Amino acid sequence: MPKVAIVMGSDSDLKVMSKAASMLEKLGIDYEMTIISAHRMPDKFFDWAKGAEDRGVKVIIAGAGMAAHLPGMCAALFPMPVIGVPMSGKNLDGMDALYSIVQMPPGIPVATVAIDGGMNAAILAAKILAVSDPAILEKLKDYSEEMKAGVQAKADKLHEIGYEAYLNN
Amino acid sequence: MPKVAIVMGSDSDLKVMSKAASMLEKLGIDYEMTIISAHRMPDKFFDWAKGAEDRGVKVIIAGAGMAAHLPGMCAALFPMPVIGVPMSGKNLDGMDALYSIVQMPPGIPVATVAIDGGMNAAILAAKILAVSDPAILEKLKDYSEEMKAGVQAKADKLHEIGYEAYLNN
Amino acid sequence: MPKVAIVMGSDSDLKVMSKAASMLEKLGIDYEMTIISAHRMPDKFFDWAKGAEDRGVKVIIAGAGMAAHLPGMCAALFPMPVIGVPMSGKNLDGMDALYSIVQMPPGIPVATVAIDGGMNAAILAAKILAVSDPAILEKLKDYSEEMKAGVQAKADKLHEIGYEAYLNN
Amino acid sequence: MPKVAIVMGSDSDLKVMSKAASMLEKLGIDYEMTIISAHRMPDKFFDWAKGAEDRGVKVIIAGAGMAAHLPGMCAALFPMPVIGVPMSGKNLDGMDALYSIVQMPPGIPVATVAIDGGMNAAILAAKILAVSDPAILEKLKDYSEEMKAGVQAKADKLHEIGYEAYLNN
Amino acid sequence: MPKVAIVMGSDSDLKVMSKAASMLEKLGIDYEMTIISAHRMPDKFFDWAKGAEDRGVKVIIAGAGMAAHLPGMCAALFPMPVIGVPMSGKNLDGMDALYSIVQMPPGIPVATVAIDGGMNAAILAAKILAVSDPAILEKLKDYSEEMKAGVQAKADKLHEIGYEAYLNN
Amino acid sequence: MPKVAIVMGSDSDLKVMSKAASMLEKLGIDYEMTIISAHRMPDKFFDWAKGAEDRGVKVIIAGAGMAAHLPGMCAALFPMPVIGVPMSGKNLDGMDALYSIVQMPPGIPVATVAIDGGMNAAILAAKILAVSDPAILEKLKDYSEEMKAGVQAKADKLHEIGYEAYLNN
Amino acid sequence: MPKVAIVMGSDSDLKVMSKAASMLEKLGIDYEMTIISAHRMPDKFFDWAKGAEDRGVKVIIAGAGMAAHLPGMCAALFPMPVIGVPMSGKNLDGMDALYSIVQMPPGIPVATVAIDGGMNAAILAAKILAVSDPAILEKLKDYSEEMKAGVQAKADKLHEIGYEAYLNN
Amino acid sequence: MPKVAIVMGSDSDLKVMSKAASMLEKLGIDYEMTIISAHRMPDKFFDWAKGAEDRGVKVIIAGAGMAAHLPGMCAALFPMPVIGVPMSGKNLDGMDALYSIVQMPPGIPVATVAIDGGMNAAILAAKILAVSDPAILEKLKDYSEEMKAGVQAKADKLHEIGYEAYLNN
Repeated sequence: MPKVAIVMGSDSDLKVMSKAASMLEKLGIDYEMTIISAHRMPDKFFDWAKGAEDRGVKVIIAGAGMAAHLPGMCAALFPMPVIGVPMSGKNLDGMDALYSIVQMPPGIPVATVAIDGGMNAAILAAKILAVSDPAILEKLKDYSEEMKAGVQAKADKLHEIGYEAYLNN
Repeated sequence: MPKVAIVMGSDSDLKVMSKAASMLEKLGIDYEMTIISAHRMPDKFFDWAKGAEDRGVKVIIAGAGMAAHLPGMCAALFPMPVIGVPMSGKNLDGMDALYSIVQMPPGIPVATVAIDGGMNAAILAAKILAVSDPAILEKLKDYSEEMKAGVQAKADKLHEIGYEAYLNN
Repeated sequence: MPKVAIVMGSDSDLKVMSKAASMLEKLGIDYEMTIISAHRMPDKFFDWAKGAEDRGVKVIIAGAGMAAHLPGMCAALFPMPVIGVPMSGKNLDGMDALYSIVQMPPGIPVATVAIDGGMNAAILAAKILAVSDPAILEKLKDYSEEMKAGVQAKADKLHEIGYEAYLNN
Repeated sequence: MPKVAIVMGSDSDLKVMSKAASMLEKLGIDYEMTIISAHRMPDKFFDWAKGAEDRGVKVIIAGAGMAAHLPGMCAALFPMPVIGVPMSGKNLDGMDALYSIVQMPPGIPVATVAIDGGMNAAILAAKILAVSDPAILEKLKDYSEEMKAGVQAKADKLHEIGYEAYLNN
Repeated sequence: MPKVAIVMGSDSDLKVMSKAASMLEKLGIDYEMTIISAHRMPDKFFDWAKGAEDRGVKVIIAGAGMAAHLPGMCAALFPMPVIGVPMSGKNLDGMDALYSIVQMPPGIPVATVAIDGGMNAAILAAKILAVSDPAILEKLKDYSEEMKAGVQAKADKLHEIGYEAYLNN
Repeated sequence: MPKVAIVMGSDSDLKVMSKAASMLEKLGIDYEMTIISAHRMPDKFFDWAKGAEDRGVKVIIAGAGMAAHLPGMCAALFPMPVIGVPMSGKNLDGMDALYSIVQMPPGIPVATVAIDGGMNAAILAAKILAVSDPAILEKLKDYSEEMKAGVQAKADKLHEIGYEAYLNN
Repeated sequence: MPKVAIVMGSDSDLKVMSKAASMLEKLGIDYEMTIISAHRMPDKFFDWAKGAEDRGVKVIIAGAGMAAHLPGMCAALFPMPVIGVPMSGKNLDGMDALYSIVQMPPGIPVATVAIDGGMNAAILAAKILAVSDPAILEKLKDYSEEMKAGVQAKADKLHEIGYEAYLNN
Repeated sequence: MPKVAIVMGSDSDLKVMSKAASMLEKLGIDYEMTIISAHRMPDKFFDWAKGAEDRGVKVIIAGAGMAAHLPGMCAALFPMPVIGVPMSGKNLDGMDALYSIVQMPPGIPVATVAIDGGMNAAILAAKILAVSDPAILEKLKDYSEEMKAGVQAKADKLHEIGYEAYLNN
């Protein structure tokens, strides 16, 4: 049974949302992923969002651009956390999607991450699951160490070869 | 049978949306008005929006603030025009609501009016009905004359008493 | 007789506005399309906008960029609905055009759609005509089904081949 | 014969625009002032703007808020300089009016001043007239000296009584 | 042992953050609440954030205004979810805090809620805990019903007494 | 003797400012053009700006990007009109330059044109000179006719070949 | 001899800039303070800014609103650090001043602090002097302790009396 | 012993920050440069920032993008000046980083320079050191002359070859 559901309103969001999928895979978390438009197929969307709890889903990651209603409507229909990923789209650099997702009215929060923040959405989902799953918590701590080592390696390289060589690489 | 439905997500929107109602009254157009939250009562909202056509509604005027999803979700469920009124709310001067309403994705337009533009929403609804209703078209033309006369009266007063007296009135 | 008039201030808007034209064709709605600048040829613009009602036009779709006055001036001269399409232009991502179109003063609404939203302008025009034209209403419902099927096909493809294959296509 | 015409779209702009009038009076420049809405009385507006040249007007100062089309439409109809004053209005702090006025397309410039900058519009009009009127040029230079002395007096007072006393005054 | 920690950078944030506290009380969730500035007392902040896991904290709710670093630095030091609440402050309507909280770099997400969204932060924390706590899930569902009934009561009142009486109440 | 001075803060502004030069040439107006940085050579800038009146300059066109102080400082030193051209630069789409130029404090206006509006700056300069120069006024009216004919030709072509052929040209 | 010069363009900035003065007094740093407008008295401003080095000034704190040129012009004329304080003014919440101050072109930096950040400007000036003045460094460290104790006292009070009592105080 | 420390949160900032390094080299100022993430390696960051004073560092230049906390956290831990460089990143043109850096709360200023202003950060650091180092002050004055000559050379070239040839070069 999938613990996380990834949903997006259009396949133009897939490039960003696939980073959520691959991060969940890296952290060993089962997920389902689909494309559903709250605007173009509202009935199917309602059934999907209402059925998520019964399918075992604990967290929904919803990505959308422009007037991004998908995350907020998920939050209206699903009782556990919904994470919203604003897409940058063609104009406005994602400010429209950011406001449409983060500025939810009292009672119906969406946990919003950065514009185009697909990977961070997956990490946040893992942190949510880690509240009751020590194995995921351990994996997140490992991933933190990995990130730290990654930055350290870059710093070491910079110290070693200098900024000009680094930039020319 | 009401030709226009006015809907808002919260009674904090009523002050702006009541201007839509009073303008429709002035133009002699039947309407229904209610408060429904797409986020807090999604099932009732779905039924309401899907049933609008059968109730005889030809235009929906939907007002909402913050991450304003109500107009867009109306447009997903109702096949005729939906007019969206962004509310200015407490922060951001209504930019969040404006983007959440106007930036609809391809296929599902919302006819967006100015921030807090309740009165204009009603006039736009009347213009839509006027396409096939000569009586409403006539009333709109009368209202245009009335507006023109209103500005002219102000100009006359300014010419007559001067700007200092005008401002001190 | 054309039911919809598409007008733009410059041929640099044609790429976006042609999407309105092709959508109207798809929905079987007669239209006229021209380029008129309210700033560069105000007299001709006045005649054109005032004459629209007599030519049988029921809805005007006006696209403009920067300080976009064309839609608002159409709304001052034409008594039925005017739909405004803000163009994104070179700077500011269309925020200038959006504000210039949507923030109309009381009495003279413009039905504003998304930045570069030419196609949605046509759908909105069709929805307006559908208020009194059951055939267009039917076509819009068909188009909704078509959109739904389009998303569903993408979802099916994603489920079938996975996100990596999908992105590499 | 008035050399400057002050025009505004609504009497809600009068408080700001009256500062233009009183500055022109101070500089001894004849002016006419009226309220005309390009949206609500387009025919009258056309006649007014087209007739300005024959009335002897050399510069138009046009103030408007929200989707402020008045200055730009003046510039389309009047061949000499048009100065635009964006009004701050209720929402958006005048950004909507600023963009609607300053972002004019190629060929039709509006000389835009600061949001709510009624007084500066009059000074700019005077500077324009000063190009060919040495008496106005002299008055502007006097006014510059006056402004300088005004700041100097404040500086002297601050040095004399200190900032605490100054703020408590 | 507290399951949720509420932290804010200044007591000027308390009015908003107290709504988080009272909502957690309503939902029967134990919490701790304190004021710690990441900028003014970084050592104490580090100890506090690192010690949270051992104190039993599962979710941190961090509120901050202006260049709001507190939520992001919590997310750097605490392995489970951090919810960020942007404060609107004196200038910029909270846009500065919103960007400082939501735009976290890859690897360190903060679950951001609306500007001044203290109450929603608590509901989101409850949703996170509800993933593994059926009693909290039940309470959230009850709260959803309560919200729905609240809107319905307002709608009923509006239908009963009309908008004029409603506004005059 | 040049009637117009074109000045820019950097040669990166030359592409936009050269459009001002070529438009002045087209309108038969003598001008001088140079590069002076108010920040990098303040003394030379002061001499240049103060000396402009004696060199016969009647209007200054000043272009600058980012924290664009050049137009405003020209207005502080030159008693006749200064036209400011905000440059779009690398970031922020010219919003920084627009605010730095248009938001001048009381007493020191800058006639601001659109972002990157070099050509419009020249037309505005010509309109200013046209106040007292009937020959320039005549040329501006001719140019208006030319613009009108240009749009008309595009409209004719569109009507003749249709939008698809037009776009493929 | 004053080590810091505080300058502002208008006495409307004095309320914010007086916080810089009182903080410098608290830290025992000599300063001069005056009002000079770069726009209204450019010659005097030039003399003042160029003479600052000879008067012993090591750091200039310059506050200004709207199209805030004062800090940048100080930086063009004074070879040591200039700190800019953007004022929030009547419209735009200080965004205009912020961009006008922080977006300085290559070669002429202004050390910009927060909108209305008068007090922080003084602390930054002290930090700059502390680079070579151990006594000031010590005072800054004391001030840091004082700030820390201030937050701690608030936290203690909150723990002691609870948020409701705290808010009612 | 390095007098300036350059730090950035990611090697994607290196292109901008290397301009700080090369300018310091040009001005003959010793520096250290590294990559440290306050979010990904908070302990190491704390040690690094706290140890800077003992390593002889007098000024820190910190560059970061998005929710840029690095400069502010440096300012919380290091008692002398911290210069912040906002990075423009992929979305929002650096507005997110600008707000996250410049809007620091009372007591903890960051000296903010322009978006992507790496070179200016180095010049500001030099100006800070020049307060007590006459040799650096001299070098800065030389650099000012060099900049002036650079602009003058461009102006001369423009006068000599004209704008068309200049642009074609």
